[in-house]
Amino acid sequence: MDKSIAPGALKIAVIGGGTGSFTMLSALKAHTEHLSAIVNMVDDGGSTGVLRDELGVLPPGDVRQCLVALSDSSKLRELFNYRFEEGTFGGHSFGNILLTALEKVSGDFRGAVDTASEILQIKGKVVPVTFDNVRLRMEWPDTKVILNGERVIDAHYFRYDPRRAKLSLVPSAKANPEAVAAIEDADVVVIAPGDLYTSLGPLLIIDEIAAALKRTKAKCIYVSNLVTKDGQTAGFKVSDHANEIERFVGGSFLDYVLYNKQQPDESAIHRYEAEKAYLVQADEDALFKANYTAIAGNFLGNIASENGVDRLLPVTRSLIRHDTEAIARAIISLCGKNN
Amino acid sequence: MDKSIAPGALKIAVIGGGTGSFTMLSALKAHTEHLSAIVNMVDDGGSTGVLRDELGVLPPGDVRQCLVALSDSSKLRELFNYRFEEGTFGGHSFGNILLTALEKVSGDFRGAVDTASEILQIKGKVVPVTFDNVRLRMEWPDTKVILNGERVIDAHYFRYDPRRAKLSLVPSAKANPEAVAAIEDADVVVIAPGDLYTSLGPLLIIDEIAAALKRTKAKCIYVSNLVTKDGQTAGFKVSDHANEIERFVGGSFLDYVLYNKQQPDESAIHRYEAEKAYLVQADEDALFKANYTAIAGNFLGNIASENGVDRLLPVTRSLIRHDTEAIARAIISLCGKNN
Repeated sequence: MDKSIAPGALKIAVIGGGTGSFTMLSALKAHTEHLSAIVNMVDDGGSTGVLRDELGVLPPGDVRQCLVALSDSSKLRELFNYRFEEGTFGGHSFGNILLTALEKVSGDFRGAVDTASEILQIKGKVVPVTFDNVRLRMEWPDTKVILNGERVIDAHYFRYDPRRAKLSLVPSAKANPEAVAAIEDADVVVIAPGDLYTSLGPLLIIDEIAAALKRTKAKCIYVSNLVTKDGQTAGFKVSDHANEIERFVGGSFLDYVLYNKQQPDESAIHRYEAEKAYLVQADEDALFKANYTAIAGNFLGNIASENGVDRLLPVTRSLIRHDTEAIARAIISLCGKNN
Repeated sequence: MDKSIAPGALKIAVIGGGTGSFTMLSALKAHTEHLSAIVNMVDDGGSTGVLRDELGVLPPGDVRQCLVALSDSSKLRELFNYRFEEGTFGGHSFGNILLTALEKVSGDFRGAVDTASEILQIKGKVVPVTFDNVRLRMEWPDTKVILNGERVIDAHYFRYDPRRAKLSLVPSAKANPEAVAAIEDADVVVIAPGDLYTSLGPLLIIDEIAAALKRTKAKCIYVSNLVTKDGQTAGFKVSDHANEIERFVGGSFLDYVLYNKQQPDESAIHRYEAEKAYLVQADEDALFKANYTAIAGNFLGNIASENGVDRLLPVTRSLIRHDTEAIARAIISLCGKNN
């Protein structure tokens, strides 16, 4: 990357699902005008699942979260994330209903996202990774275990090592050319933190996305998850996460992995344990030998802070948060160097 | 009214419910920048009724139609009037859901209408006649018949003469001061065509609205309904309609009544008969003696035309339409005269 690019002119593509992308985008939008959010399209649970099943639309949930992250209108952000509490609409978030209605009216999810982007007056661009109507599948080749659907996989307690599992989209998906272009044109590609098998994998395994990640001149940065996921990635170290990211892509492409080295205080540890969530440990020997540069930082945010960003996140999410401002600053500072 | 007011500067307030106001507003917005739509707030049927019952919100349906009429964005108009056809949301129109979510988020229907107005980029202003949560009641004082609720009254086949019935709001409503101000400040007040007992009456009986109509210096124009309503206003002539309008207000206030004199062709008559809808007849003797000036015109539009306006109206509505462009021109031309 050219040293001469001013931070505000950096082209950053963020790859991920809902919550991880939401937090990264919220922090990064203060640093650049040129953000693209490339979004997972396999969600089939909750409000999104009902809308897909009943109305045959593409999944709105993760797109909605990214749109909200990039909007500057607090009134419209709140509207889009408003979740009806009772009655016919109970459990549905308004933004999901809006995207569904727009897709029905225009017959086209791309047009729906564009119109919603106008309504929300977003900075940057939300780019669904595919417009194909696909479902996620996870299977262990040497067993009979096949899991179908993001919701099912997300809730599953794996009997076998997921690192030997094959993740695929059914039917196979063609990447949205805008997503490929965003990766190719970016100065920085950020793989947002997120569930490996249901949030990040479903984007990275798409052929044209994987090829673009290997081909792009952008710095590729993975922001490692903070905590392990019970029943799925228990015991995974930082390098295990990064290895899975590269396995999905089918080759080495990461330039940097950012991970947290900060220790929480005692009261926080107890709260983590209650969630069966454990901080991802750094395995420094492995990281030292890796093809990417691993960078440790104090990336632990306040627990369950009551700021505007957190208030818009689903309450069921982990209480443990990244300090996304610190991560955003680390990303921007990396872009000033020719390593 | 001052002769010197250019048509584009005319301040026009349109009073009515959903469909009648929708068509009048759609036609009048080509003639002035200063339109206010004062809207009925007693709807409790269909999508609106479900939302009121389940979520305790104020009725969004008629407000939605007026917002759509005043929007210039065809994409957003279509979105707002989009009605889900199947699944959990079947029968609900998107604009109703939007207004409901906005009311829930802001805790305030006034704020909801303002935000929806911004999103739809409307010309003019939509003014709910009241922010009180009220239901419509119709009772015949010398009988035991009491009908409760707009939906019930709308579907009822009256056993007694409705001209002897008392219409009221339960509990009694306080007018929105903006509605009163719009009537007082207007150059022209248009009572849109609409069902007498469920669409127009519920606005006109509100004390402050009635007082404002009697007090305003604006020209008050009633656009007479085209057809009678089976089981409610069968046999009503033009003067019967106008009399009921003035009975609701409790006094003479109309300056003009516009009515149609055009005869439909044979094929149209058959289609009307199938609907049990009959053209409202002019009783010229009575009209000649009235306090208002009755003005006949060729106000019959094309039947079930496929233009953009009609496509946005509920399909259950009558196929018989006003030529709203001709009516709008008649209204504007009246405003150039000092009668």
